[in-house]
Order: sequence, then structure tokens, then C-alpha cells
Amino acid sequence: MNREGSLITKKIIAYAFKNSLKEKEYHKISIKEIMADAGYRRQTFYDYFVDKEQLVLWICEQEITENIQHFIGYEHWTDILGRLLLYFNKNKLFYKKILISGNQQLLDLTLLPQIEDLMLRIMTEKNTSADRKKSITEAERFEISRFYAFAATGIIKDWVLNDCQAPLEEIKEYLIRMADKLS
Amino acid sequence: MNREGSLITKKIIAYAFKNSLKEKEYHKISIKEIMADAGYRRQTFYDYFVDKEQLVLWICEQEITENIQHFIGYEHWTDILGRLLLYFNKNKLFYKKILISGNQQLLDLTLLPQIEDLMLRIMTEKNTSADRKKSITEAERFEISRFYAFAATGIIKDWVLNDCQAPLEEIKEYLIRMADKLS
Repeated sequence: MNREGSLITKKIIAYAFKNSLKEKEYHKISIKEIMADAGYRRQTFYDYFVDKEQLVLWICEQEITENIQHFIGYEHWTDILGRLLLYFNKNKLFYKKILISGNQQLLDLTLLPQIEDLMLRIMTEKNTSADRKKSITEAERFEISRFYAFAATGIIKDWVLNDCQAPLEEIKEYLIRMADKLS
Repeated sequence: MNREGSLITKKIIAYAFKNSLKEKEYHKISIKEIMADAGYRRQTFYDYFVDKEQLVLWICEQEITENIQHFIGYEHWTDILGRLLLYFNKNKLFYKKILISGNQQLLDLTLLPQIEDLMLRIMTEKNTSADRKKSITEAERFEISRFYAFAATGIIKDWVLNDCQAPLEEIKEYLIRMADKLS
């Protein structure tokens, strides 16, 4: 199958899985069920994924990339942060169930490096701007980005676990203030 | 039973449980086994804890308190950070197994508020010192402490998951630099 067809199939499986998560808990959803919902034979699942964990990992990676990476360089970083939060808000049920099922590391694996990347980009931009007072070394940029990524990931997970009750704008402004403080 | 006797019993149960974790995985350890190892009847466990999760929560809470809270106000905060890292380094096997068993939230629940407290204390100290240039409002102190706690918790968990391979002094200096930057 060509790459595009493959991507579409994966997205259909992902959609069916997210749909099942609206009604059931993570551990109670079977591959058979997901594939019946998607309109495929059970066996087809294994052409794309090893297990449910790998499917979750793929969903996080794919969708977070579509909401961060694809916009770096095109949108202002504050808008990218807003877009990311909007995505989590829309998918809060999915992420909450992933988190409480004991699969925190699946989200960490995908979210951490992408926020780290975004923060690196923010600092590179600020560092080259004319009004910059003191320059930050590359090593410092890496350590600050990593620190920021851990904090932002923690804050986003906490927000999702609390059903995104705090207003999106509040979380966004908080993350922006902290990025400004560190960079 | 008086409070002190109760604390000793809990510590003996905790010790036996930690000991079992050296050989076995979290999910494979039974209450019966822990209590046989501790030299108590199985039923005694339930005088103190509801289940294994509650025992883990108690261990984290108790031992992190003994390594942070008890020293706030007596030791310099950089020494408290060093002490905390030393504690995690000594207990890396225990915490790694808790983390990979899908019980991350048990550690978060106990470590996050304590680091938050420590950071609040750091900022209050810095804010009242004479050489302080600009003052930080109380609301800002809370938001910075929370942000710092999420990042430091993430960094410590990541360190433990990697068997504390990075030198303790390196992690300590990193956490100190970031605290200085934010406060």
C-alpha cells in the first residue's frame, strides 16, 4: 500500500479507537472491537500496529506533530501554544483515559521532545532579535528547553486530568509568562 | 496502639515491601508475602493500609517529608535539593519499579507539593533579602513554584528511570540554576 493510503487507514483505526474510548475504559477495549468499528478485519490491525500501546503512541505522535511541528516557522510561538492547548481541550477525554490507565509515558514520549523543540525555537528567535540584551549559550538553551518541556508537559497533563476546567487562555498566558521568564 | 508504635510498624512493613521489590516486579508482590517478610500476620496489613497503592503513597509521603520538609528552615535550600537527590539515588530501584508499574501518580502526589513548598520558601527568602532588586508578588511566587515543581519532578523521575546514571552533582547544579533563573 502506498504511504498516503497507509496514513488514511491508520487514521481510521485511530478514529475508531478514540470513539470506543468515549464509552469504555482503556483496558476494556479489544482490538477486535476497534477494527469492527473501523470496518476492517481484525488482522488488518497488525499490518499497522503491534498492540494498543503502539496505536496510542502513534496517535499522540501524529496529532501533536500536526499541532506543533507543522506550524513552527509559520505561526508565532504563542499561537502554537494556543493551538496545542486547543487540541488537548478537544481531546481531553482521550488523554485523560490514557493518563489514568497508567500510560503516562506514552504521552511523555511524544509531548516532551516536541515542546522542547518549540522552546529551542523560541529562544533562537529571541536570541537573534536586535533588542536582545544578553546572549544565551547553546548548552544553556538546551537545558532551559528541557526544563521548560518537563514543566509544560506536567501542567498540560494536570489540566487534562482536571477535565480542562481552568480556562484555556489562563493556561496559555501562564505558559507564555514562564517561557518569557526563562528565555 | 500509640502513634509511635504505629509508625514503627508501618516502617517495618515498608522496609519489607521495598525489600521484595529488589527481587520482584510491583504487580507480582502479594500482601501475604510482604507481611511474612515483615514477620506479621497478613491481617495486620489492613490495620494500617487499604492496599499496596496506599502503602506506596505512605512511603513516598513519609520519606520525602523526612528529606525535604524536616529540613526547611534549618538547611540551605541547595543542601535540601542535594539531600533529596541523594535519597532518590539510594532508592532508585524502588522508584523506578513504581514508575514503570504505571503508578507515576503516587509519586507525583507526594513529590510535587513538597517541591512546590521548597520553591516557595526559596523565593520568600530571596525576596526579603536586602540585595533583592525587584519584588515578586505572592501570586507570581505561587505560579513560579508550581511551574518549578512540575519541571523538577519530571527531571527527577527521568533521572530515576535512567538508573540515576547522570552524576548527582550535575542534576543538583541544573536544578539550582533553574531555581535561580526563575526566582
